[in-house]
Amino acid sequence: MVKLPTQFRYYPRPPSTRFGNLEVANDQQISTRTPASGHRIGCADVTGEQADIAAEIERIDRKPRIAVLVGGVGGARFLQGVRELLPEADVTALVNVGDDVWMHGLRICPDLDTCMYTLGGGIDTERGWGRVGETWHAKEELAKYHAQPDWFGLGDRDIATHLVRSEMLRAGYPLSAVTEALCNRWQPGVKLLPATDDRCETHVVISDPDSPGERRAIHFQEWWVRYRANVETHGFVTIGADQAKPAPGVTEIIEGADVVLLAPSNPVVSIGAILAVPGIRGALRTTSAKVVGLSPVIGGKPLRGMADECLEVIGVETSAEAIGRHFGARSDTGILDGWLIHSTDEAEVPGVEVRSVPLLMSDPAATAAMVREALDIAGVPA
Amino acid sequence: MVKLPTQFRYYPRPPSTRFGNLEVANDQQISTRTPASGHRIGCADVTGEQADIAAEIERIDRKPRIAVLVGGVGGARFLQGVRELLPEADVTALVNVGDDVWMHGLRICPDLDTCMYTLGGGIDTERGWGRVGETWHAKEELAKYHAQPDWFGLGDRDIATHLVRSEMLRAGYPLSAVTEALCNRWQPGVKLLPATDDRCETHVVISDPDSPGERRAIHFQEWWVRYRANVETHGFVTIGADQAKPAPGVTEIIEGADVVLLAPSNPVVSIGAILAVPGIRGALRTTSAKVVGLSPVIGGKPLRGMADECLEVIGVETSAEAIGRHFGARSDTGILDGWLIHSTDEAEVPGVEVRSVPLLMSDPAATAAMVREALDIAGVPA
Repeated sequence: MVKLPTQFRYYPRPPSTRFGNLEVANDQQISTRTPASGHRIGCADVTGEQADIAAEIERIDRKPRIAVLVGGVGGARFLQGVRELLPEADVTALVNVGDDVWMHGLRICPDLDTCMYTLGGGIDTERGWGRVGETWHAKEELAKYHAQPDWFGLGDRDIATHLVRSEMLRAGYPLSAVTEALCNRWQPGVKLLPATDDRCETHVVISDPDSPGERRAIHFQEWWVRYRANVETHGFVTIGADQAKPAPGVTEIIEGADVVLLAPSNPVVSIGAILAVPGIRGALRTTSAKVVGLSPVIGGKPLRGMADECLEVIGVETSAEAIGRHFGARSDTGILDGWLIHSTDEAEVPGVEVRSVPLLMSDPAATAAMVREALDIAGVPA
Repeated sequence: MVKLPTQFRYYPRPPSTRFGNLEVANDQQISTRTPASGHRIGCADVTGEQADIAAEIERIDRKPRIAVLVGGVGGARFLQGVRELLPEADVTALVNVGDDVWMHGLRICPDLDTCMYTLGGGIDTERGWGRVGETWHAKEELAKYHAQPDWFGLGDRDIATHLVRSEMLRAGYPLSAVTEALCNRWQPGVKLLPATDDRCETHVVISDPDSPGERRAIHFQEWWVRYRANVETHGFVTIGADQAKPAPGVTEIIEGADVVLLAPSNPVVSIGAILAVPGIRGALRTTSAKVVGLSPVIGGKPLRGMADECLEVIGVETSAEAIGRHFGARSDTGILDGWLIHSTDEAEVPGVEVRSVPLLMSDPAATAAMVREALDIAGVPA
């Protein structure tokens, strides 16, 4: 378990060690980040029939291992359904970090926080993001300093999360360890693992509103929150993807899972941004688990957010079928074995088992029913 | 004028330049920090009598130049009196930074902020520090994360100041430039200049409460706020003093002043910490201006704060006379020409003109009367 650093940063010169270009105080505990334990029964001394028996016992006894690729609001609600259906399961959410951003010297991880607050009971359920009982005084004051950016909703309670995270990151902890430390408080009931510990951000190429005829890249948050996607857009680019690798444990969890689910999150900037981390798509292609996705689009409209705007940018129609085909079949060059679409929708995705079921996440029980259908396609009992 | 950086830090890879070990984005404007202008009439082409006449015109026409060494609450109130008496004067406050501290990844400058908020109308006048209308939600949340330190009063509005400061410092701006940028908002009416741009912090050697028989050094804030000085204390040490130098302009302002005032601030950890910056004491010893101090102790008691606790640590009696002697006469090896003590006090400080006047800073008008007396000792008309 990763604990918060307890030393005071303001001490004169804490003893420290350099790890590459990071200087880490020696009294800070660095997670060794071994892959999640408990996935394998130790079989080193048994062979043949004994091993088969041991494996069979393991299969029957152990909790189902579920990996879920998730974004923010939709992903968080979907995880509530997974937890509702299988409170004892070994669930790991592989969370999109493409939205992550430095603002005012704070590292903000919108999707990780939305999952953490939602599952930990701290979310503002009206807004769907940020803390309940939030105030905005620091934001007001930042605006009075004319500090940019001024269009981002930075709440006072939320800032505490960002302060802890930013300080730990600067001290050398990887984001996955920071997330584990933050979750010690929130106890989300599922493991939240960033897709990558590396900076791997979605930026958007737009026609520069300030320089007609020119293009520039802005961070996804600016496109989404400031411009509400209402600006001429030419494409997405994932900054840092060339050097990113999956966070420790991510590929092992995909490989060792009984089923991998794609939450009904934005297929471009949530699921797509996770897939942009080199190694994750490959793990989805090779895992022995079935991969089942859920459509975030019902009747040609996204349930929340602006998936349609994002899909348009990459030239994919806003329909359950088009998104399923965009992800594609594992038997071909894609990542899906199964694809859940809403009861009223129809879709044909070559090589993929498509099933129509109610996909409205109106409450955790309704969401749990969706999860059950997805597990059923994968042949995992629930 | 130093403006806030306008670029967004979260852009992929802003073009940047390395200055020593600082990497500074090229679109950030770095102050050239020339010494305050307007102090000298350009006399390069005139000599002899012409120069004498020019100098006389300058002397009569120009605003009085006042340098004031200040700490926090007492220093801020004293500056209100200076501004009240001489609204048109060229006043520079040389502010103690010995209390400055990194907490939660934020650079907190208590004395600079107390001066800025007090003079800018943003102070909580009841508490004497921090922002009026303050809330404490981020602090509550930090405590729920068990993030240390948890004993420091970090307000939500206040955090905005620390965020702007910390981001600018990390971008490579010196503290003096950051302070100028923050003051663009607050318009304190006097120039606030940190004594040094370098890290030069007061730490306190105590008997370790957790390890009987051992000593350790803690930051002054921990000694002051957490322990209320109620722990066995062996001395003060100024971390970083060996490598610190005065902020750009500090020695020039002392040298070019008509009078230098020592506010009635803590003589050990405020005025003393300013004097600990190499070069400042020397400038006070050699300036042609008179140096006049005001006692923070009346009737053997400090007016505010815990000057008595600090004086005890360094073996100086808590009396106006003892503090005057501690500072000493410039004609000897000290820094004072004049020393103001309260009407009811008596003091003899060899080589120093001591004057008894009312020293209660009950309002800016009363404080202005104190300032007038100090200027009178220095022969500066007000």
